[in-house]
Amino acid sequence: MISTLQHRRAPAEAGVRRCPIGSVQLDNGRTLPDVVIGYRTWGTLNADASNAILVEHALTGGTDVVTDDDTRPGWWQGLIGPGLAIDTRRWFVVAANIVGGCFGSTGPASVAPDGVPWGSRFPLITVRDSVRAEAALADRIGIDRWHAVIGGSLGGMRALEWAVEYPGRVRHCAVIAAGAYSTAEQIAWVQPQLMAIRQDPSFRSGDYYGGPPPAAGLGLARRIAHITYRTESEFGSRFSRLPQGAEDPYGHSSSVAGRERYAVESYLDYQADKLAGRFDANSYIAVSETLVSHDVRRGRGDLRRALSGATADFTIAAISSDRLYLPAGSYELAHALPGSPHVAEIDSPYGHDGFLLETEAIGSLLAQRIV
Amino acid sequence: MISTLQHRRAPAEAGVRRCPIGSVQLDNGRTLPDVVIGYRTWGTLNADASNAILVEHALTGGTDVVTDDDTRPGWWQGLIGPGLAIDTRRWFVVAANIVGGCFGSTGPASVAPDGVPWGSRFPLITVRDSVRAEAALADRIGIDRWHAVIGGSLGGMRALEWAVEYPGRVRHCAVIAAGAYSTAEQIAWVQPQLMAIRQDPSFRSGDYYGGPPPAAGLGLARRIAHITYRTESEFGSRFSRLPQGAEDPYGHSSSVAGRERYAVESYLDYQADKLAGRFDANSYIAVSETLVSHDVRRGRGDLRRALSGATADFTIAAISSDRLYLPAGSYELAHALPGSPHVAEIDSPYGHDGFLLETEAIGSLLAQRIV
Repeated sequence: MISTLQHRRAPAEAGVRRCPIGSVQLDNGRTLPDVVIGYRTWGTLNADASNAILVEHALTGGTDVVTDDDTRPGWWQGLIGPGLAIDTRRWFVVAANIVGGCFGSTGPASVAPDGVPWGSRFPLITVRDSVRAEAALADRIGIDRWHAVIGGSLGGMRALEWAVEYPGRVRHCAVIAAGAYSTAEQIAWVQPQLMAIRQDPSFRSGDYYGGPPPAAGLGLARRIAHITYRTESEFGSRFSRLPQGAEDPYGHSSSVAGRERYAVESYLDYQADKLAGRFDANSYIAVSETLVSHDVRRGRGDLRRALSGATADFTIAAISSDRLYLPAGSYELAHALPGSPHVAEIDSPYGHDGFLLETEAIGSLLAQRIV
Repeated sequence: MISTLQHRRAPAEAGVRRCPIGSVQLDNGRTLPDVVIGYRTWGTLNADASNAILVEHALTGGTDVVTDDDTRPGWWQGLIGPGLAIDTRRWFVVAANIVGGCFGSTGPASVAPDGVPWGSRFPLITVRDSVRAEAALADRIGIDRWHAVIGGSLGGMRALEWAVEYPGRVRHCAVIAAGAYSTAEQIAWVQPQLMAIRQDPSFRSGDYYGGPPPAAGLGLARRIAHITYRTESEFGSRFSRLPQGAEDPYGHSSSVAGRERYAVESYLDYQADKLAGRFDANSYIAVSETLVSHDVRRGRGDLRRALSGATADFTIAAISSDRLYLPAGSYELAHALPGSPHVAEIDSPYGHDGFLLETEAIGSLLAQRIV
């Protein structure tokens, strides 16, 4: 599988292994052929394959959970490694890129059987589809049962689906900053993001490979998303109404043509550019649609019934200030799970991004409960 | 002043009178020449001009505070009229379109002295500039002192500026769902909205008059804004994960090209189309920038000092569930005002839009305090 974005994706994919898993049957009746899963591992699988932990990434994450490169830390840097919370002297840790992503797994930028990138033709991948593909990966790398499947946000949704779809294959399951289904509000927030990409003239219905990518649209999507990931109080204390450096937001002569910036605007510009430089816009759409599809109840009855077959030991955690994946969603999930496990509410000022930033609290929680 | 958008704006402007006020000196040193203010009145000004009330509209509002047309109710319908909370048998009510708007006042679509619409050249209008223009209107229609200046959201910011800039001209001042300045979070939310308009290929740097307007960009801006105006719980209870009618969000074959909709998405489409059909995109930018400029402290010292000269009797109200103009901002304002007036927190499930929807509570409050 040759990627048309290989030059852009190279740094994040260093060390990623690729496992062909054949076709994946999708919930909507279609088949995605020739699927490859990009994954990375840390530690050593023991003789009876009982020490494997699957770490599931979120929307724009990848297999770079931790890195050896100080200039490019992983998204859970400090949590996994020798002597750390998830001690790789004991545990064999696996991180798989989600199907639809752009860090090693088959996604919209991958070349379809006809020799042309999937682009506009890339199918809807539900959370359940993505987990089905990961089960095929587990089969191929010899892991029958995970000691734990752990994830936050979209990673938490995938962890939950693992525990429900494959109860015999998951001993512990940690669902952080995610609920049992994507809510109307979460669906609402995705709509303008994907529209921003699709309205970018470079998007060309998703068939832009070979031409310039819709970076402006992706940057706009990221700005919207990033605000929802943080909190009003953090923005207030960090930026207040400060101008950006020597810029003067009151000074420019036209409102329509644009003015100089406030510091918070420069911060959003930075976040937008950073994502647009490392992520494929079509993958942003594909994986956002996976997130929107999340509903553990689908085809399984009401929530309690849908969860009734899950046998894993659950760790449910919420970020206190999360305004996108409200703690209420975690309580609803926990309440409906067999045995109604306790919800660990992690006190954080960072909002949803607390699931990435509060590694110490998350490490303690996992150490207490799972590892 | 001939508008290039007259065909679109006609319905909302029926009954609007236009008052030329000459040049307006702007905070940034520029002069906006030949300014016209569109305004509407209800009731009769009494002999000593002591019964006048100025009602200030919000971002996309206009002078249609109340209408006689049941199919197109005003934004505070039911609040103003004979026998209503603001009883027009007693009070003379004035509503003025903000400078930069598109409902009768000089704005980006207006023709500049060179015979071409202002478009990309339209200057930044601060809240203070807009109030200066309204003071010129008041002079011309013979109102030396308002019995009250009342507004919500951007209208509340204008009301506050009136009371601070012209203390002798404001007896009562009601600031609803607005704080003393636009916060980092509020600035942040505006950025992707204006970017959405500017990234629309039809925008042409703001000089699109005569061609198609950037309706897609404006619709995208409205979607973002509308979510911030409402609440997660309202979306949840109204829409949950319901599909729109017979549409099937899981059924479509491609995620990249787009799928069928959830009900909440159709609702946002409706809100977007409604605004794009009635509002000029450049005015959306101009008035949003006015909102971003809001800082009653600017050039006046700290907040308490900035407010120290205000002599009006203040009514400060917040919407309990407002997540864009947090009640905390209203408390901060009230606390710093002379005499630290009480904050009336209006209990509402609607979020920021409660300032438009909770007319009964607002009417009671105004009846108790002002009229």
